[in-house]
Amino acid sequence: MLLPDGLRTPALVVDLDRLEVNLARMAAGAAAGGFALRPHAKTHKCLQVGSRQLAAGAVGLTVATVAEAEVFAEICDDLFIAYPLWADAARGARLRALRDRVRLSVGVDSADGAAALARHVGPGLDVLVEIDSGHHRTGVAPEQAGEVAAAAARAGLAVRGVFTFPGHSYAPGAGAPAAHDEAHALAAAAAALHAVGLDALIRSGGSTPSIGHIAAGTVTEARPGVYVFGDAQQIELGAMGADQVALAAVGTVVHRGPEKVVLDAGSKVLGADRPAWAAGFGYVPAHPEARVIALAEHHATLRWPGELPSLGSPLAVVPNHVCNAVNLADELLLTRAGRVIEVWPVAARGANT
Amino acid sequence: MLLPDGLRTPALVVDLDRLEVNLARMAAGAAAGGFALRPHAKTHKCLQVGSRQLAAGAVGLTVATVAEAEVFAEICDDLFIAYPLWADAARGARLRALRDRVRLSVGVDSADGAAALARHVGPGLDVLVEIDSGHHRTGVAPEQAGEVAAAAARAGLAVRGVFTFPGHSYAPGAGAPAAHDEAHALAAAAAALHAVGLDALIRSGGSTPSIGHIAAGTVTEARPGVYVFGDAQQIELGAMGADQVALAAVGTVVHRGPEKVVLDAGSKVLGADRPAWAAGFGYVPAHPEARVIALAEHHATLRWPGELPSLGSPLAVVPNHVCNAVNLADELLLTRAGRVIEVWPVAARGANT
Repeated sequence: MLLPDGLRTPALVVDLDRLEVNLARMAAGAAAGGFALRPHAKTHKCLQVGSRQLAAGAVGLTVATVAEAEVFAEICDDLFIAYPLWADAARGARLRALRDRVRLSVGVDSADGAAALARHVGPGLDVLVEIDSGHHRTGVAPEQAGEVAAAAARAGLAVRGVFTFPGHSYAPGAGAPAAHDEAHALAAAAAALHAVGLDALIRSGGSTPSIGHIAAGTVTEARPGVYVFGDAQQIELGAMGADQVALAAVGTVVHRGPEKVVLDAGSKVLGADRPAWAAGFGYVPAHPEARVIALAEHHATLRWPGELPSLGSPLAVVPNHVCNAVNLADELLLTRAGRVIEVWPVAARGANT
Repeated sequence: MLLPDGLRTPALVVDLDRLEVNLARMAAGAAAGGFALRPHAKTHKCLQVGSRQLAAGAVGLTVATVAEAEVFAEICDDLFIAYPLWADAARGARLRALRDRVRLSVGVDSADGAAALARHVGPGLDVLVEIDSGHHRTGVAPEQAGEVAAAAARAGLAVRGVFTFPGHSYAPGAGAPAAHDEAHALAAAAAALHAVGLDALIRSGGSTPSIGHIAAGTVTEARPGVYVFGDAQQIELGAMGADQVALAAVGTVVHRGPEKVVLDAGSKVLGADRPAWAAGFGYVPAHPEARVIALAEHHATLRWPGELPSLGSPLAVVPNHVCNAVNLADELLLTRAGRVIEVWPVAARGANT
């Protein structure tokens, strides 16, 4: 990834060629795998990326919040909020306004949640029941999906299927077993819906580390997010190569010490994510042996074996978790061959409600 | 801390009574300790908080970046950028524009950095030499401060003193020893300046966990930041009581499981900071036995012993590191007695350059 000259650092830089390759490869993979693609927009939060995903054949977009849906409704007419939303009067009004603009579906994982959606949004809202396939965050056990679905149907909601996030794919070697768990959980949940007289037309899954392991026929839709840019986690997990990563934070070397440099891109730029299995707080393409051993808000401390870069030189660091890094930025600088050719606003930055 | 009803969650809520007590207490502590206060604005990034700090007697404000200085120049005429800035032509032009508006001083920790400042900003710029008192981030060893100061003076800069961030105070029991290290390092650096014929009029230190341990006469100015709000780290370090913490993220309970609840305030609201010694990703005032055991972007998973809060109920979590949480928000909701009375924009959010 070539860096533009004269950047005002720190800045997030995107290699447009690599982004386009990533979009095309995932679209081809979904077509070959026989499932529809509904990419998660929480990673990029940019209308320009969402539009390119739709142009590449995505059936719609996934978002995490009502506020993200409000942003992406501008470019997409089929949105899924993959979250067990709790509806009150105010959120209900926002969801009704969204329904007037786009085809909308939302997640649900409890009878109480379904009742609140029915009360505050109204009957006929499309819902998918969230199930836990092993990540143990939200979602019910697959065998309980029928109970939640039946309650949702009784409340007047339109049950369209089931979804899961196999987030336990985020560990070394865990992509294939997580895809296996996902397939079994979706099948069990679909059977549980069938047992109460409901069809799981949609069986939605997918995460970037597990999507390459999806077996034919187990998933009807997938919701990968990170694949558009990649990040240091995907490199360490082996889910993407370093030469596929399309986004980096560019900082300036402000300090040098023995086997050490400090950059002006800290946790307010890279995000502070660090899973226990990660080698550091990011990946340094120009010197993969370097390790980001500490982050402060405006400092990244790198252990740097060998000859140090000079003070004032620009240096790129790939964040551990690109979704959180993008959410810290107001804009992305799009480059081709090391020149900034466009600036894309992070339109849904901070859209958490 | 009383929570307002009907919040659109997640949201950052500030208890204004507690904030005012924190401001007054730190001002009184500085007066009693015989040092000036130059609070770090990177914590709050709000003009309203900065104005209150100045009204309480602060001699000026500290910031981390040129962009933060550009924001706070609106309300403060004496700013210190406590960072070893690398000046290029563009940053130099911004610093010159700032110098025309306010009394400005900046950090420097290398002869090359001093030369770049002199070249791009011009002679006479006030600088403080950064020294390393044990945190091992940026700054030179105290005995090397004379060398950097002499180079800065030869380049035409006005050396006003020395500064350090005793960041190694951020560990259990480390506040007092870090203040001791800070005092010794500042004294040694001042002696090193004296040896090259320069005076360290300013000896600047201070962090929230160490400031209560500053010995008389060792520091002329202190730059605490976090004390205005406090956070879960300060509670765990014993630097602030839970009843002094003035800011919390309020989320909604969206999922319940065995000994578990999930909130809609994740790492895009709380920040992902978690030092090794922390009990979790935040502190739950309503139920201190609860532990935030996992964060995803839009989920906080809490292990919750005892009776669970109901689905849809609001719940406050104090972030581990308030500076990063504030930087994720567009606004803070100011409350008194559980009612929102004002909304303050986070004016310097994302001001990283």
